[in-house]
Amino acid sequence: MSDSTEAKLRAMEARLQALEDQVAIYQLMTSYGPSVDSLNEDLTASLWTEDGVYDPGGTPFKGTAGLVSLVRGKVHNDYVKKGSAHLTSFPHVKVDGDTAVATCYSQLFIHQEGEHWRAERTSSNRWELVRTPQGWKIKLRTNRLLTGSEEAKALLKKGFPPKK
Amino acid sequence: MSDSTEAKLRAMEARLQALEDQVAIYQLMTSYGPSVDSLNEDLTASLWTEDGVYDPGGTPFKGTAGLVSLVRGKVHNDYVKKGSAHLTSFPHVKVDGDTAVATCYSQLFIHQEGEHWRAERTSSNRWELVRTPQGWKIKLRTNRLLTGSEEAKALLKKGFPPKK
Amino acid sequence: MSDSTEAKLRAMEARLQALEDQVAIYQLMTSYGPSVDSLNEDLTASLWTEDGVYDPGGTPFKGTAGLVSLVRGKVHNDYVKKGSAHLTSFPHVKVDGDTAVATCYSQLFIHQEGEHWRAERTSSNRWELVRTPQGWKIKLRTNRLLTGSEEAKALLKKGFPPKK
Repeated sequence: MSDSTEAKLRAMEARLQALEDQVAIYQLMTSYGPSVDSLNEDLTASLWTEDGVYDPGGTPFKGTAGLVSLVRGKVHNDYVKKGSAHLTSFPHVKVDGDTAVATCYSQLFIHQEGEHWRAERTSSNRWELVRTPQGWKIKLRTNRLLTGSEEAKALLKKGFPPKK
Repeated sequence: MSDSTEAKLRAMEARLQALEDQVAIYQLMTSYGPSVDSLNEDLTASLWTEDGVYDPGGTPFKGTAGLVSLVRGKVHNDYVKKGSAHLTSFPHVKVDGDTAVATCYSQLFIHQEGEHWRAERTSSNRWELVRTPQGWKIKLRTNRLLTGSEEAKALLKKGFPPKK
Repeated sequence: MSDSTEAKLRAMEARLQALEDQVAIYQLMTSYGPSVDSLNEDLTASLWTEDGVYDPGGTPFKGTAGLVSLVRGKVHNDYVKKGSAHLTSFPHVKVDGDTAVATCYSQLFIHQEGEHWRAERTSSNRWELVRTPQGWKIKLRTNRLLTGSEEAKALLKKGFPPKK
């Protein structure tokens, strides 16, 4: 193989890898809702690193044991019994080598009497992700309810630092 | 072309194809809502194979004639007259050769008096897709209302079989 | 490099570029919500070309000054104070050389008393995009409220012209 062919192939492979990272992160993020709404605690926990943190406000859920406890908890099971959809909006994802940040919204819709569903939560989201030998995982996911608080707005703003 | 160049190109082409499949399926899935909300029955029907099935609970819509009847039906036209948005959530998509499975949520928002929109339906979704000479098509789409039923949860769980 | 290798590389590069365009447009579109919900007027304005237009019904917002005035306006700031989420649905995106069209839905959820969020707006969307030296930008974004109007349906239909 000539040097120029080799160089071209390497450049294209880097571009392919960047696209694959983007899609792999999409796949990770779209697994969360189905995992918690079907009480698939193994799947939920597997989305985070072993020491990963989910901080939706209040006491954070830490590590595999913490995430399993979220899925097994009474609050969550009451939602699922009523009928729940944990929606993750189409995210903005910036990959930087072996880490990435996703900025998006999450909503929790719960089935109501009279056959409709209501957004009981609507939050700003920041997902800090890492590449691991087992693929992309969540290191820290932070949500804040969009009630007008500065904290919720700051999460959205942080995902888009000013360009130098 | 040397053997090693040829092999590298083939490997990269397979990775490109996988990404193109992912995006083609995204394009298919994001066509559904606009097709039914604009009463574009030809577009709706074209998203399925000729013998494809849409099973949203109740009697399934079968094949091109069935899908056209859905778009032309009174129930659907009443929604569209009031003002409807058939939303498909950002999906998890697993491609396996010439078939694929997408797992996601769908919601039907209807315009209400007092200028707001309400989720009249929120469902778990499983889309079974096939590659055809005319591109990716839906072979079977199944939705179940998220009312706490086991069936609705099972659709979400089925998309994520345990890793061996 | 042999002619056949060169040709194969060129063909693959075009396919890579098409996928990169798709993802770049996804990144542009997922920046809008976070920009307005965090009052990041510089980011909002940067999503449009300098003479770009945002036409959500009523008087359109024109150019950088118009978009900044949208973010600074009283109507918008009242939403943000209450707690707002400007959601863009997963879009259908057709790229054609240096222009592209995205068809999707947008929703504005506002925090209500009694701790829930309500869709105060649900609109059909058409985003007309252009490739610039600074990346993909919005040239014209048009939204129409889904209240059953022909105009709102036409926006959705226009994104899917019949295949010849």
